[in-house]
Amino acid sequence: MEKYSVIMAGGGGTRFWPLSRRRMPKQFLNLTGRDIMVNETIDRITGNVPRENIFIVTNVSQAEAMEAAVKGRLKEGRILAEPAARNTAACIGYAAAVIRKKYGDGVMCVLPSDHYIKAKEAYGEVMEFAMKLAEETDRLVTIGIKPTKPATGYGYIKYNKKVKEVGYTIGTASQKRIAAYEVSDFVEKPNLPAAKSYLKQGCYLWNSGMFVWKTSVILRYFEELLPDVYECLMQIEEAIGTPGEQETIDRIYPKIPKISIDYGIMERADNVIMLEGDFGWNDVGSWDTLDAVYDTDENNNVVQGDQIHIGSKNCIAYGSKDRLIATIGLDNVVIVETEDAILVCDKSRTQDVKKVVELLEEQGREEYL
Amino acid sequence: MEKYSVIMAGGGGTRFWPLSRRRMPKQFLNLTGRDIMVNETIDRITGNVPRENIFIVTNVSQAEAMEAAVKGRLKEGRILAEPAARNTAACIGYAAAVIRKKYGDGVMCVLPSDHYIKAKEAYGEVMEFAMKLAEETDRLVTIGIKPTKPATGYGYIKYNKKVKEVGYTIGTASQKRIAAYEVSDFVEKPNLPAAKSYLKQGCYLWNSGMFVWKTSVILRYFEELLPDVYECLMQIEEAIGTPGEQETIDRIYPKIPKISIDYGIMERADNVIMLEGDFGWNDVGSWDTLDAVYDTDENNNVVQGDQIHIGSKNCIAYGSKDRLIATIGLDNVVIVETEDAILVCDKSRTQDVKKVVELLEEQGREEYL
Repeated sequence: MEKYSVIMAGGGGTRFWPLSRRRMPKQFLNLTGRDIMVNETIDRITGNVPRENIFIVTNVSQAEAMEAAVKGRLKEGRILAEPAARNTAACIGYAAAVIRKKYGDGVMCVLPSDHYIKAKEAYGEVMEFAMKLAEETDRLVTIGIKPTKPATGYGYIKYNKKVKEVGYTIGTASQKRIAAYEVSDFVEKPNLPAAKSYLKQGCYLWNSGMFVWKTSVILRYFEELLPDVYECLMQIEEAIGTPGEQETIDRIYPKIPKISIDYGIMERADNVIMLEGDFGWNDVGSWDTLDAVYDTDENNNVVQGDQIHIGSKNCIAYGSKDRLIATIGLDNVVIVETEDAILVCDKSRTQDVKKVVELLEEQGREEYL
Repeated sequence: MEKYSVIMAGGGGTRFWPLSRRRMPKQFLNLTGRDIMVNETIDRITGNVPRENIFIVTNVSQAEAMEAAVKGRLKEGRILAEPAARNTAACIGYAAAVIRKKYGDGVMCVLPSDHYIKAKEAYGEVMEFAMKLAEETDRLVTIGIKPTKPATGYGYIKYNKKVKEVGYTIGTASQKRIAAYEVSDFVEKPNLPAAKSYLKQGCYLWNSGMFVWKTSVILRYFEELLPDVYECLMQIEEAIGTPGEQETIDRIYPKIPKISIDYGIMERADNVIMLEGDFGWNDVGSWDTLDAVYDTDENNNVVQGDQIHIGSKNCIAYGSKDRLIATIGLDNVVIVETEDAILVCDKSRTQDVKKVVELLEEQGREEYL
């Protein structure tokens, strides 16, 4: 069965201000020093999915920039532009409808565009297993991440028991054992005591937002669990490839009920299976997570750019080669330097970066947005 | 008797890096938002001393920049260039010799070029009293500053009793009482317990480095207490106004023994009298002192430039209008932004800014020096 990948890249992302801006959301940032995040996501999945089968769903306002950013990586027509942001169920359903209409049924993996994965080989093995499972069992496969700490910034997925698919031969040579679990519950971001309890109990994984299923299977779930969304999707699917395609999308898409795939389908489906991923995943949700991406110096500082640190520790300093950043005696401070703006933030307060952006919006300071 | 002012402006000053550089030492900085410090010093004393009698002593390497910086403020030939830095005794003795040779005896006040004074009127009154005292009594007058906190960054001067000159009519209308004391001891920068004890004892003032005396009187003290220095000064004085003046200065000056006026004369003279100044003096010795110069916001932050502060307190943020500085959740942090470098420093560590400069010197990074 043909394999497809749908990369969700419609996020606005204010939490990496001042590096991220309206025209430069997180998926366009090179936070890893290698490439922009969406290109890393594309390249990472090409071991499992042919390039010509990789799609990106993004907002129409970002579509042109996305075309330019991924140039040469994707085949023409693989960027699907949403006329409006309608949450992840709409985004995924739209992509599934396009794929089924144009190519028939297939296995599709759904990937966020802006996450970091350290161990690409291990990632590829999990994805390969996930696709085989989806193809052979008609189940909804989700990738859970083995927690490394009691994170409060992630959702958790609770499982009850391992299923028989545990232990799977990947490729020809290696015999990999990847755990697969029956899912019992999806849990919102917990507070710290709850997160600690989850780790202690040992039957929780982080919700990575990565899913694998057949297009026909997920669309059947839309029909069953989200009939209003499904009706819109079917109107769009019918118009695909006709002269009225764009008009229909522009008219119907903004009416699709706003609901997340987790809330609308994953939490309600009886058929979800979870694979355990342990490949150095991080959603890179805010500046303080950069220490998961970069090696730190002997004082646990992440140092990117031209810098001098005297007696500073546990800091994240992200600058350029053009300007020198010098710090003295800091602890747990994030410093970000861009051409027109500087952020200095206590490391425990990086979630509040969006407050700066809100304030700039209130003040109408477009040059910084 | 004619009045003269000698402004000492030869300092190198690394403690305001990255704003201060080799070619831009502290006296050239506009740290107050009004004018560069040396110009503020000039303008402040013009209420007491005619402009044409104001001299600046600086290093020959800074002389040209100084000419440009004070342009229009001083008469020609009022910048005395030291061929080498030989500490404050040499600097003051040289100026005294020049003044005596060219104009005869007079009252001269010696002023650092890079201190901040908030209450200019009160300052002028103290200086007027000091000059009258110096003229009438032939004593060495020093200005002590009434301490406002147990500062460890200043030297202290101990006094034993008020002298009869207390209470002096300034000008025609106001009857000002300015305390004058017999000096008993000069004390180096103390540790905190000692500083607290000084404040409790109440018989200590801060050593401001401002002095007033007759040129003839101070030169007599050079002759008595620093005969080696005096001999050099006399060779220079003899050459002043002759074709061999510059050659003599270049040859003799670098040989003057290096000693401070405090150590060489003030601490050893039997004739010192101290006036109490209470006019918002601050030596602005490092970035953390800026809160003495500027009003703070409601969270005790000094904010200079285009900035947004969310939940930050007790910070000093010094930037420009061209780039935005945003901070979140900081406490006691100094942030300085310049075109090519950024400093972020714990407020208690601003003395270590010079370590950054030393490191840059070691690394041969001339562009930042």
